[in-house]
Amino acid sequence: MSITSDELNFLILRYLQESGFQHSAFVFGHESVVINSGVDGSNVPPGALISFIQKGLQYCEIERHVREDGTEIDCEEPFELLAPHI
Amino acid sequence: MSITSDELNFLILRYLQESGFQHSAFVFGHESVVINSGVDGSNVPPGALISFIQKGLQYCEIERHVREDGTEIDCEEPFELLAPHI
Amino acid sequence: MSITSDELNFLILRYLQESGFQHSAFVFGHESVVINSGVDGSNVPPGALISFIQKGLQYCEIERHVREDGTEIDCEEPFELLAPHI
Amino acid sequence: MSITSDELNFLILRYLQESGFQHSAFVFGHESVVINSGVDGSNVPPGALISFIQKGLQYCEIERHVREDGTEIDCEEPFELLAPHI
Repeated sequence: MSITSDELNFLILRYLQESGFQHSAFVFGHESVVINSGVDGSNVPPGALISFIQKGLQYCEIERHVREDGTEIDCEEPFELLAPHI
Repeated sequence: MSITSDELNFLILRYLQESGFQHSAFVFGHESVVINSGVDGSNVPPGALISFIQKGLQYCEIERHVREDGTEIDCEEPFELLAPHI
Repeated sequence: MSITSDELNFLILRYLQESGFQHSAFVFGHESVVINSGVDGSNVPPGALISFIQKGLQYCEIERHVREDGTEIDCEEPFELLAPHI
Repeated sequence: MSITSDELNFLILRYLQESGFQHSAFVFGHESVVINSGVDGSNVPPGALISFIQKGLQYCEIERHVREDGTEIDCEEPFELLAPHI
């Protein structure tokens, strides 16, 4: 279950295109050469990058708040993408 | 636990910079205006984008292979980022 | 009668825009910072860059084919922008 | 003595490279496809674009200040690239 850089770059290119970052998409497509990588994106749904990151964040939150014995740690602090969680 | 587009764009910019995609990083920085967004990235570790996506993929795998009663579904198929899982 | 780099960059930016090189125009506008240079382009006609270069090429051709006493050097060779003229 | 767009684009690409506009050069190289155009630039001297434009500007100045009978029009006004000459 590892991720190749071609796969990751493909997800990013899709995000740039879907978000209207047309200049970035053009440049990244050429610089990453992901267009020629042979990645088959026909089954990748819209918003895939955001969706994976959201699930990744949920995963982190669970990791932080579940004890080894399965009980939950009570926590009122918001869990955020870029800030450390205390 | 939601993700803002500024946060997401910050993670992507970091990835582009860390991966040596200097032209894409320049263009995306200007096009997304993420540089001016006031995101505080001082606590964001290297490789953050990849790490979140990997955890997101793990999350998806667990979702697919654990039944509601907590038992696991046996499955030998590889679980991949861009391909549908049968 | 000297040319500043801001003036030159302005002509190039116009050329990129007029020729449909939208990604290059976006990137060059930011990288050259010509947008903030205060150049007043309101009187610059379309095609200005090409027009100047064509006249520059004509100037070179005249330089090469007119003797100091004003008489013309006979020459059938084509005069080209990028190739040396023999 | 006409100029092709491949030739012009080649001169611009050279200018971008020589002037340190590396991101613009990357993007323009791909967007104009001038790299694949087969233009032979081996004889193009550094600063060629600026040099042509300067000569073009001189040409314009002469056109404006020489009468049909060859006599010169007296003029103290500076002759500039982007401003109309009165």
